[in-house]
Amino acid sequence: MSAAAERAGRRPTIKAVATAAGVSTAAVSQAFNHKGRLSEATRRRILDAAADLGWSPSAPAAALRHARTRTLALVVRRPTDVLGADPHFSELITGIEGELAPRGYGLLLHLVTGMREENALYERLAAEGRVDGAVLTDARDDDARPALLARLGLPAVLLGSPDGRAVVPRVGLGDQGAGVAEAVTHLLDLGHRRIAYIAGPPELQHTRLRRGAFEKALRAAGLRPFAVLHTDFSERMAVGATEALLAAPGRPTALVYANDSMAVCGIGTVQRAGHHVPRDVSVVGYDNLPLGSWLHPRLTTVDQRVQQVGAAAARLLLGLCGEEVEDLPLTGRPKLVVRESTGPAPN
Amino acid sequence: MSAAAERAGRRPTIKAVATAAGVSTAAVSQAFNHKGRLSEATRRRILDAAADLGWSPSAPAAALRHARTRTLALVVRRPTDVLGADPHFSELITGIEGELAPRGYGLLLHLVTGMREENALYERLAAEGRVDGAVLTDARDDDARPALLARLGLPAVLLGSPDGRAVVPRVGLGDQGAGVAEAVTHLLDLGHRRIAYIAGPPELQHTRLRRGAFEKALRAAGLRPFAVLHTDFSERMAVGATEALLAAPGRPTALVYANDSMAVCGIGTVQRAGHHVPRDVSVVGYDNLPLGSWLHPRLTTVDQRVQQVGAAAARLLLGLCGEEVEDLPLTGRPKLVVRESTGPAPN
Repeated sequence: MSAAAERAGRRPTIKAVATAAGVSTAAVSQAFNHKGRLSEATRRRILDAAADLGWSPSAPAAALRHARTRTLALVVRRPTDVLGADPHFSELITGIEGELAPRGYGLLLHLVTGMREENALYERLAAEGRVDGAVLTDARDDDARPALLARLGLPAVLLGSPDGRAVVPRVGLGDQGAGVAEAVTHLLDLGHRRIAYIAGPPELQHTRLRRGAFEKALRAAGLRPFAVLHTDFSERMAVGATEALLAAPGRPTALVYANDSMAVCGIGTVQRAGHHVPRDVSVVGYDNLPLGSWLHPRLTTVDQRVQQVGAAAARLLLGLCGEEVEDLPLTGRPKLVVRESTGPAPN
Repeated sequence: MSAAAERAGRRPTIKAVATAAGVSTAAVSQAFNHKGRLSEATRRRILDAAADLGWSPSAPAAALRHARTRTLALVVRRPTDVLGADPHFSELITGIEGELAPRGYGLLLHLVTGMREENALYERLAAEGRVDGAVLTDARDDDARPALLARLGLPAVLLGSPDGRAVVPRVGLGDQGAGVAEAVTHLLDLGHRRIAYIAGPPELQHTRLRRGAFEKALRAAGLRPFAVLHTDFSERMAVGATEALLAAPGRPTALVYANDSMAVCGIGTVQRAGHHVPRDVSVVGYDNLPLGSWLHPRLTTVDQRVQQVGAAAARLLLGLCGEEVEDLPLTGRPKLVVRESTGPAPN
């Protein structure tokens, strides 16, 4: 955009360029992307019209060889009902959108049910040139997606623990287990000895990392978990796991949940069973969603800064896509936020 | 897809067709879209390969003349932090994705801050051929978007009260005020007389409709609202409004909120002030989000079937985009779901 046009506050459009040059908008894109089969005369005419109008694709020259979609993909491999129930994804999308929206980028959201479907989707998005890059979620052990995306030439970032050897850059807070370890220490300091962990699906990397941190922190105090129960993050399983733990002989005095949504279900289930939180049972969540501070008692939880992680992933990916992005590296580790749902262990 | 391939459960892919014909996947698309500059021989070879493999674009022949993006836009004009805090949008997106995902469609999510930005975005998405259609949210009085989208030739549906005269089809439950009216009747039956309404932003159509229904239902009983307070749907304003109402002389015995997120904040605020829900103060939400049934007490709320509305909007839009979609019209009206957060008025 020319300085004059910018001052006037009117952005010239690709459509105006197309009209001026007497071609389609697709032809204008092709002229800048060096794609398509434009004659040199047509290409010249388009570039001249763009120069006259002060229009150019909003990206560094280096990126001009590729068609820009100003769209990033976020593919989520979860059942649709969990997406609806778990505000985690709203938070993540909010963080990503906070970086995308001011730059006019959109987020292409695809829900898939399995790995093969997810991989086929990346193949198609790359083949059809639908997106400039992709944010990958739910890092798994032996994750095949980074290699696939590298082969497809599609810029990508993976949400998960930083890993210098990774094919695709990973974005996440360091020391994923730190928050859970801090939660266990907090509960031990309050006198709790019978502590149970309500975990996520066993195949997710963060489930393994956090479960490991939970067990290690207890082991350091010479203790073992009262129980570790895996769930699919659903309300149904969170309630079921909580009821089972409350009914167990010598029931736990503290429940640590793998996310805030399940912890909220847990508090409700504990209260409904006639127990007081935190006088009878302490509850810890994970995520630090806004939800947790609305409740009474306010939820003690681990802040893993989901929005900031989403924003950092978006910034890194935008940079890989050729946008000029300020470097605001994500630092720190998950941290316990002590509120009202944890208290001294009952006698 | 051929019957044989369908029976075998293996969908032939565009990639397989491209490989068989020795061309790129883009060329396969062009052959079916009658775009590009393929020679007739190449085009013939591609169509033959597709026929051999039983592959065809999943759309009626009438739509084949247009390039298909298999992408629908959802543009949300909200501050990013409200998107993160309010599970309403997760529910809506879940409903839309439930129809899109099985058909291989994605949802292009854009957050915008104002009307001009939203309109400019539709212009760009149409000019660049990024989407096949758009779901519009937050119907407003004198909404200029339907006319714009009609001019752009972009299929669209608008979430809001059905309106036969509308340029763009509207999808929503009929009788938007019915749920709020039912909530007021429920509270009157329980003996409440001092009932306050914590509303959304005044410029939204549904705010006006529901506020009107609230006032009308009270008027029919010879009463006036204790108060009607507008908010921006944020936690901060929900808590502030609740605190102000609790501190008011002759404080209300029942609080009706314009959404569940604010109602959850409201319950927490009432409990924190030392009151019991519902013994001292009854609380009603709006949306029937999963969240409401996790709490203790479980939230009495109005079910406006957000997921089903999203699904219906997606189906209608997919049909407008040329997909074959079964006709499952959305019927019914918002309905009160009585749970545990409402009870008899205190003496």
